[in-house]
Amino acid sequence: MRNIDGIYILDECLESYGNYFKAAKILVDMKSNYQKILVMDTRDAGRIMFLDNDFNVSTIMEAFYHEPMAHIPLAMVTQKENILIIGGGDFGGACHVLKHKDVGQLIMCEIDKQVIDVCRQYFPDWAGKAEEDPRFSLVIGDGIDFVKKPENKAKFNAIIIDSTDPFTSARSLVTESFYSDVTGCLRPDGVLMQICADTIIYKDLWLDVIPNIKNHFTSFYPVLVPIPFYVTGVWGLIIAGLQESSINPARVTQEYIDSIGGVKTLTPDLVKGWFSLPPYFQEHISGVM
Amino acid sequence: MRNIDGIYILDECLESYGNYFKAAKILVDMKSNYQKILVMDTRDAGRIMFLDNDFNVSTIMEAFYHEPMAHIPLAMVTQKENILIIGGGDFGGACHVLKHKDVGQLIMCEIDKQVIDVCRQYFPDWAGKAEEDPRFSLVIGDGIDFVKKPENKAKFNAIIIDSTDPFTSARSLVTESFYSDVTGCLRPDGVLMQICADTIIYKDLWLDVIPNIKNHFTSFYPVLVPIPFYVTGVWGLIIAGLQESSINPARVTQEYIDSIGGVKTLTPDLVKGWFSLPPYFQEHISGVM
Repeated sequence: MRNIDGIYILDECLESYGNYFKAAKILVDMKSNYQKILVMDTRDAGRIMFLDNDFNVSTIMEAFYHEPMAHIPLAMVTQKENILIIGGGDFGGACHVLKHKDVGQLIMCEIDKQVIDVCRQYFPDWAGKAEEDPRFSLVIGDGIDFVKKPENKAKFNAIIIDSTDPFTSARSLVTESFYSDVTGCLRPDGVLMQICADTIIYKDLWLDVIPNIKNHFTSFYPVLVPIPFYVTGVWGLIIAGLQESSINPARVTQEYIDSIGGVKTLTPDLVKGWFSLPPYFQEHISGVM
Repeated sequence: MRNIDGIYILDECLESYGNYFKAAKILVDMKSNYQKILVMDTRDAGRIMFLDNDFNVSTIMEAFYHEPMAHIPLAMVTQKENILIIGGGDFGGACHVLKHKDVGQLIMCEIDKQVIDVCRQYFPDWAGKAEEDPRFSLVIGDGIDFVKKPENKAKFNAIIIDSTDPFTSARSLVTESFYSDVTGCLRPDGVLMQICADTIIYKDLWLDVIPNIKNHFTSFYPVLVPIPFYVTGVWGLIIAGLQESSINPARVTQEYIDSIGGVKTLTPDLVKGWFSLPPYFQEHISGVM
């Protein structure tokens, strides 16, 4: 007989569909100045962090999300002198960026100091790996302000926006004014990688985001990546560049993947597939492409 | 305030993770001779059938599962005179096979007459489209017996096994003796397509299935397809053939996809990606490949 005792967290997606997670132990349940932070251990789904009740990251699936977010944009640039992560407070994305030996400096700009403190304590492997690397520096602040600062102009080879979902609290990170500032912070051959939305349930967000991206970037592609435990299972990222030839999935070669070491989720053919949009989604966004 | 009133169905996956679905109306809740059958309407996730409490199919996602199951194997064969589906009682897979004008005859062998009756009533579009096609015939019976019959020897160009999960009730459909009979029913250039398991939570099933497949087929490939609403989001199918050159994902060309008409989820690059195994899974199955 199944044991249903316990504390369940619901990650609601539709009115009639979502994921549930059963806690073995609640480690953090607090409200920061920005969001509700919940961290729990589970018996068989890893240690999980939820932000505002949305599944954010788990120790057993982080590579499925962080590897594409880090390694695809870094394949598009010839120089990796300065990399910026906006958000990314769990330090997981930073760890993957820092696996690249040719990264010069990585700045992570996270708005929520309390997420940082929680992750230092409860995801110590990721926080430690990032913070012990001399190339890493942390800025506690709003990414929107950070990309406006004169000293950040034309500075970054790649900007990775690893925020909460842009259809909820991070809506300000998919606006025209934000993209205008982001392009100002990129070098001429720089690229942006950003979490967007799935293509079934939150598909209409793409109709808002694409025109904004299009007005500020010369080339852009949705990248549809399978991410287990995210509701619907496949999540959409968006990659964009300032030049016509900025983005080409063929740059994620086997040689490139091998040079990073220990990559779990990428192959050249998988990445090419993630750039290839299924007909139902091509049709959905055809009016804004 | 969220309205949590109502009837919830849990699709359990791990002890600490699963999907939940909220019913707007329960249409069927019965026990057949083989399994529990539950059909419900939801407000925003379509009409859903659960078999033995596992999510089976929904009107809003069926193409993600049935299109690869039907169109990938049919791309591998030059003749489509006789096609066999084992299982497939919702008639969805049959509809996709019958979209191919060059299919001669399609036999669907479903063990559970009560699933058929339920689907005729509650998924009438699929049942109607299949049963009104003169090329379609239904056999109510056990697939295990069907593939033993002398009249079915060397008959089929493609066999599609659209059963419940082989890690639960359909375990007998991944055994050596079953595969031995299946190969006997295939023509020399025939192919098998079968639902298997995901690559994270049920990954150990592959270690049992692959050696059995390998002993009876000359070529075989796991095919990892994103299927929304299936727990973990990406599900593994297995395709196998009797000849060295039976299987080649490059045969799913744009021309082939266009010739079917109305395909929603396939592109040539996506299919190539689904054949490309991520490193974590390559490593997991390396001992049995």
